[in-house]
Amino acid sequence: MSALASRVTGTVHVIGVGLLGASIALALRERGVAVTLEDISPTAVALAEDYGAGRARQATDPDPDTVVIATPPDVVTAVIAQALTRFPQATVTDVTSVKLQPFEQLKAMRAESNPELDLDRYVGSHPMAGRERGGTTMARTDLFVGRPWVICRDADTPSHVLARVEAIALDVGASLIEMTPEAHDAAVGLVSHVPQLLSSVLAAELSAAPAGHIELAGGGLRDMTRIADSDPELWVQILSANSEPVSKLLRTLGDRLLSTADALETGGVGTRRHIAEVLRDGNQGVRRIPGKHGSDDRFVTLTIIIDDKPGQLGLLLTTLGELGVNMEDLRLEHSPGAQIGFAEIAVLPEVADRAREDLTERGWRIV
Amino acid sequence: MSALASRVTGTVHVIGVGLLGASIALALRERGVAVTLEDISPTAVALAEDYGAGRARQATDPDPDTVVIATPPDVVTAVIAQALTRFPQATVTDVTSVKLQPFEQLKAMRAESNPELDLDRYVGSHPMAGRERGGTTMARTDLFVGRPWVICRDADTPSHVLARVEAIALDVGASLIEMTPEAHDAAVGLVSHVPQLLSSVLAAELSAAPAGHIELAGGGLRDMTRIADSDPELWVQILSANSEPVSKLLRTLGDRLLSTADALETGGVGTRRHIAEVLRDGNQGVRRIPGKHGSDDRFVTLTIIIDDKPGQLGLLLTTLGELGVNMEDLRLEHSPGAQIGFAEIAVLPEVADRAREDLTERGWRIV
Repeated sequence: MSALASRVTGTVHVIGVGLLGASIALALRERGVAVTLEDISPTAVALAEDYGAGRARQATDPDPDTVVIATPPDVVTAVIAQALTRFPQATVTDVTSVKLQPFEQLKAMRAESNPELDLDRYVGSHPMAGRERGGTTMARTDLFVGRPWVICRDADTPSHVLARVEAIALDVGASLIEMTPEAHDAAVGLVSHVPQLLSSVLAAELSAAPAGHIELAGGGLRDMTRIADSDPELWVQILSANSEPVSKLLRTLGDRLLSTADALETGGVGTRRHIAEVLRDGNQGVRRIPGKHGSDDRFVTLTIIIDDKPGQLGLLLTTLGELGVNMEDLRLEHSPGAQIGFAEIAVLPEVADRAREDLTERGWRIV
Repeated sequence: MSALASRVTGTVHVIGVGLLGASIALALRERGVAVTLEDISPTAVALAEDYGAGRARQATDPDPDTVVIATPPDVVTAVIAQALTRFPQATVTDVTSVKLQPFEQLKAMRAESNPELDLDRYVGSHPMAGRERGGTTMARTDLFVGRPWVICRDADTPSHVLARVEAIALDVGASLIEMTPEAHDAAVGLVSHVPQLLSSVLAAELSAAPAGHIELAGGGLRDMTRIADSDPELWVQILSANSEPVSKLLRTLGDRLLSTADALETGGVGTRRHIAEVLRDGNQGVRRIPGKHGSDDRFVTLTIIIDDKPGQLGLLLTTLGELGVNMEDLRLEHSPGAQIGFAEIAVLPEVADRAREDLTERGWRIV
């Protein structure tokens, strides 16, 4: 283990050692935090131990100071309640991707059957990180580095409880964002859950299409269907737990698609305006996304032809490095069957002309 | 002009010198083809001449052998009919993105008002190429290299007419695909027009969302909304001209979103199965897309942390080149506010382990 400083005080117990739980444990171990592990699968715990994520919790271990719950969403409420009861002094957090439903269920439990349930020690959180495949073996120390980590504190949350959860998020390298559970769920409904469903329903239409039609697919369709490869069983849990914001948005989008279909079928006065406004509204919306995409005004894109063989792209980018040109974004595109690819490089406008000239001079073809 | 061989015989007249027309003209000039130019805008013609795309057609010029029409979709039928009449021996093609409506309109013209219209000399085509911005100044010689170019021949199309259009497509470096106008329009409805509308309606929802919600956006939302930045006025023309396949698909998708909203709201027996099937159908569809994405089974993705400064990515890719590792795909991701980025590299499974080891040995962090 390295000598990186840790903000975490005391011991951390991780329940659920899949991708997220094991990655948190690994990252905390790297900072020397004492981590114990628990999972419904003894094999998963043994595997996580093998990877160096900590050691299995023993009955004789003292209570942990902080408990991180990284189980599937459909059991998380029960596991949170158990943890609060089992460890009467511990701060408890979970990292599942829906935040309101578990919190409401915990409050209902306290009101109806378990008045002792001390919800002041619970703070929900949600690191915006993941990989296309889950599981202990996919865990990585760096999974959360630079990613947003949402913390849903309550007005009643004591500051030492909040500090313990924040310490874990900061230790694993994430950026803190504070939100209410309602705001979090509405936000992920919009930026994650509904995009997932749109991608899935679009990709589903490809199943019945002749292969010749799909051959015309370009970058647009590829982008729109990339996340359609997600795990159905995980998404059943996520979407069921966030049904209200998701169904509301789906209704808005479904209605807008149907009214656009109506407008196209009518084809009379108003049709063109309807379509133009759908596109215009999309233009306005996409420009609000922070970061490198959807912000054409800030960058110039150079598209450079590269041969599809080892080292060519490296050579191009080394050249850019030598020229002192920093890429703000890069996309690589291959055409099926072609022996060449295109590297689309976004650069600041002030360096674009020079980059174009210098690259052309060195023999690169810019399209 | 270089000495590249040309398959084109005779002269080519390009009507409409925007991005597509000027790019075709430039590519043909590079092969020494005699190209004349025409546009409703005298400035555009003069500009295209300045770029070396050919010269403005004079009244005294002999008739061209082939006419390529690259006007906006809403005037293309009229321009095709005029060209067939003006140049009674010429082969005429157009490159607009919808193929059935102009052809039906031409046949109706011939039946109703212009029995002399010689449609045997017309072959519609559609190169699957474009850029985010249009216009003469964006034209590039290499725009069509490696891209599919659909040709909609008729059973009656004489072989010498077909050959002239194919010669142009091959000269500019495209790959030929033969389809009926109906199949073409259904295909682009599915792979291009409907994805455009889905992206736009999703992005539109971002307009009203609090900025804090959009901060949680990850790669999924960025991918899903990239094409939402498209030009509304061009898309009004494209979508209006392909209303039947597009509206039919929109209705299917709109209904599926609404039934998914219903299932989520009901939350009872059948809800989970409904959602799982939406995801599963998407899984199956996306795997049909040829090329580098949506085909996880064929490649392994390595995610490598890179510092956000000039030369780092080049250094990484040079290393991969030295190691003899060919990337099948590359995506670059930045997190807002973070000083690092992630390079996601798809490689063949048989080289993944070695690449991972070698890169780690050289100090790269693989997440």
